[in-house]
Amino acid sequence: MTDEAPGVAATPRPPYTAVIFTSTRTPDENGYAPMAQQMYDRAAKQPGYLGVESAREDIGITVSYWRDEESARNWKQVAEHLVAQRRGRDVWYSDYRVRVATVHRDYGPDESELG
Amino acid sequence: MTDEAPGVAATPRPPYTAVIFTSTRTPDENGYAPMAQQMYDRAAKQPGYLGVESAREDIGITVSYWRDEESARNWKQVAEHLVAQRRGRDVWYSDYRVRVATVHRDYGPDESELG
Repeated sequence: MTDEAPGVAATPRPPYTAVIFTSTRTPDENGYAPMAQQMYDRAAKQPGYLGVESAREDIGITVSYWRDEESARNWKQVAEHLVAQRRGRDVWYSDYRVRVATVHRDYGPDESELG
Repeated sequence: MTDEAPGVAATPRPPYTAVIFTSTRTPDENGYAPMAQQMYDRAAKQPGYLGVESAREDIGITVSYWRDEESARNWKQVAEHLVAQRRGRDVWYSDYRVRVATVHRDYGPDESELG
């Protein structure tokens, strides 16, 4: 994660873009943790970045939030990120899926959303 | 999770609906684990259910996938689930956010998605 305290990302009102990255890891650590940290830090500086949430048990889920799909797409093409993606495919991940989604509505404990 | 081996959910081609539930827990265990299991099992029987992915470290992320938004909405209104939601708000979660999203595109390691 970033330097912020981990918690629910403070995203603005919808709509915005969510990139859901789900993965299973290989046993090969080989630089994974520092690279992951570097990617969190680098993503946070990217235009249109809104926040990230991440957790790993049997599977890992990282959801990054973006102002729009273009911002998410631009992050995908950042040179350092391309290197990390390649290494992820080759070494760190036994399986993964990336899902690009538009968040239409959201609510928390303080909102009485009944649908 | 369900009885299936945990892994990346085998969702069909987009579009479909993703409900991203992010939470932080209170220290109060008090029936949480069995209730969570019960909800995974019950959700899997719900019409339009496509799969679920879940992990918890500092924060918990559960993404459930649905054929459409109506299926997701129907699951939200199932009686047992309403009880669990209430108990979540009152006892188990210190914070949470539910984000309802439409997945437009997705890709895995075997697809050369370059944008």
